Amino acid sequence: MRPMPILKPIRERLLLGPGPSNAPASVLEAMSRPLLGHLDPEFLALVDRVKEGLRTVFSTANPMTLPLSATGSAGMEAAIVNLIEPGDRIVVGVNGVFGGRMAEVARRAGAEVTTVEARWGTALDPQAMAEAIRRVTPRVVSFVHAETSTGVCQPVDDIARSAREAGALVVLDCVTSLAGRPVELDAWGIDAAYSGTQKCLSCSPGLSPVSFSERALERVKTRTRPVQSWYLDLSLLASYFAGAKRVYHHTAPISAIYGLAAGLDRVLEEGLPARFARHTAAGRRLVAGLEPLGFEPLVAETDRLPMLTSVRLPARLRERGEANVRARLLDEFDIEVGGGLGPLAGEIWRIGLMGENARPEVVDRLLEALRKVLA
Amino acid sequence: MRPMPILKPIRERLLLGPGPSNAPASVLEAMSRPLLGHLDPEFLALVDRVKEGLRTVFSTANPMTLPLSATGSAGMEAAIVNLIEPGDRIVVGVNGVFGGRMAEVARRAGAEVTTVEARWGTALDPQAMAEAIRRVTPRVVSFVHAETSTGVCQPVDDIARSAREAGALVVLDCVTSLAGRPVELDAWGIDAAYSGTQKCLSCSPGLSPVSFSERALERVKTRTRPVQSWYLDLSLLASYFAGAKRVYHHTAPISAIYGLAAGLDRVLEEGLPARFARHTAAGRRLVAGLEPLGFEPLVAETDRLPMLTSVRLPARLRERGEANVRARLLDEFDIEVGGGLGPLAGEIWRIGLMGENARPEVVDRLLEALRKVLA
Repeated sequence: MRPMPILKPIRERLLLGPGPSNAPASVLEAMSRPLLGHLDPEFLALVDRVKEGLRTVFSTANPMTLPLSATGSAGMEAAIVNLIEPGDRIVVGVNGVFGGRMAEVARRAGAEVTTVEARWGTALDPQAMAEAIRRVTPRVVSFVHAETSTGVCQPVDDIARSAREAGALVVLDCVTSLAGRPVELDAWGIDAAYSGTQKCLSCSPGLSPVSFSERALERVKTRTRPVQSWYLDLSLLASYFAGAKRVYHHTAPISAIYGLAAGLDRVLEEGLPARFARHTAAGRRLVAGLEPLGFEPLVAETDRLPMLTSVRLPARLRERGEANVRARLLDEFDIEVGGGLGPLAGEIWRIGLMGENARPEVVDRLLEALRKVLA
Repeated sequence: MRPMPILKPIRERLLLGPGPSNAPASVLEAMSRPLLGHLDPEFLALVDRVKEGLRTVFSTANPMTLPLSATGSAGMEAAIVNLIEPGDRIVVGVNGVFGGRMAEVARRAGAEVTTVEARWGTALDPQAMAEAIRRVTPRVVSFVHAETSTGVCQPVDDIARSAREAGALVVLDCVTSLAGRPVELDAWGIDAAYSGTQKCLSCSPGLSPVSFSERALERVKTRTRPVQSWYLDLSLLASYFAGAKRVYHHTAPISAIYGLAAGLDRVLEEGLPARFARHTAAGRRLVAGLEPLGFEPLVAETDRLPMLTSVRLPARLRERGEANVRARLLDEFDIEVGGGLGPLAGEIWRIGLMGENARPEVVDRLLEALRKVLA
């Protein structure tokens, strides 16, 4: 008796939500290569090259730059739980879902959390962050570079400087920005950063590129209690991902790392400046095309991310039920766009033009479909 | 300037270590399919089918049976941190690396840990476990079904019964056993179990199939403190993986889940009894072929796993340096076998015949290569 196969052919969707974005053929092909063992010298050499590629996109010399074996949210948790001990103070900037998630992760790690809020759709006020940092003298300051729930791009420099002047470690969420906008860990003085593979790197979700500074590693060494998570413990991860002899910690996700290697190849071949320019141009083209259709950008032009555009919806779209219209886009045009999260659910759409999808022809395909469904 | 490509062609290795095993072509091909969004109805339907397939291999009706978005060690951590609060007592059976890891994960979660040790290479003594359980009255009892560091198969029934009689929840590590030997969560009365995809399921590493009983979910609901890990919090995972409306928690690893779906298709098509018989036969053929070459099984026949055989090494192999011989097997024959872990490093090899590799022709290829390198 043969059961019904679980895996039927997969439709070709154009993924213009907040991630995953579409992966190029080279990334998909890479994931279908034969498996190697996680201690095979050939695989370890590949891991080394991936680490080198990640250092390039993160603009850092940090040796502890590696693909964590879980998604971006686990990268966030790794950054927090390695640097925080119960009772440590942390200042978290919150202007969307992911800042809020950082605060929650820190609370669960036993931190005393001070949040600095900004209205969703606006950037954090560096002055307000600086004041909180001076008042609280936290061990860690953490905030989001590219807030995936709102499409806001956060200037990093001033807040990072305030934090370092107060002797705090700086954690930066680069999930949506990495490989789509300049991320300058060393120039900004970031101590722990994390990202995801399924956004501007255009790989499949499943890995979280992370990077830790020497200062962060020093902090981990001087902890009085072990890191609460064995899986995310940086000193244990180092035994596999760094150091002269590679020792088993957990079994690395072989195929996902093949995919990331192929994705990084493509990023480095294009070159970061060209890639950033492509994202900027695509974002502008999208907003220019959406406004005549009655969509209104949530975020002021100066704070707007190019790879994720949040828009308030035209009345005639809301009347039809925004979720219904998204379902029609998916069913009839094979185009996915994202809805709002939290207080913005039902209020906005989030349209991603990430990695491979940051191209004028992609923008035009979406605009044409929107004109049809709104006709 | 075109950088050197990170991803060169991958060699075809025969993976006879403790995992990953070789994935069949259908699994590799599945991972190269176009990406879907993690909230796409087509993908959510696939996740439902995967959950159903996992319930079959786990022999359980548990609704909370799902592929966790990280490797088996994170599955272990999920089982422990959801059921344990600081100060809770746990009894852990330790007869190898993975029992020891469970104890360490529990300590980091704040548990009062009592270990019951058995010599590596032997099974836990159910009587000793029962006595510790009566003495400690723990909230959780945890042990390993198939100890990947030694190749010991643990009878589950008696220990699980003792635990339940004492009102404890039972956690079982099924990383190496799942889909290669009967795993009977409901019949045994297991409350939390976890596995990996890269062993007898013959998929790529990166996901951890987990299953939680109603009793376990009840325990999570009555916790006084939130689960220390946001990423592994069962009640948050339930919002995406179960329930009527699927809500975003983290971005599911799309391609890895395609691969698991294809792997489960193949398991269910073969049928579990046939698959178990194939593993048993392959393990016997291997031991019968190894003994004349001077390898000596570490584990008594009654406690021996068929899919992972631990053997002490012949003198002429030790003389050449066991790591050198393994390197030769890899370089000249493209065959990977595993070394020992912890106190067994340098003492034993671990030879896996998992999933696709549990076949007589695979055994014979290894034996022939061994005869050549030992000649």
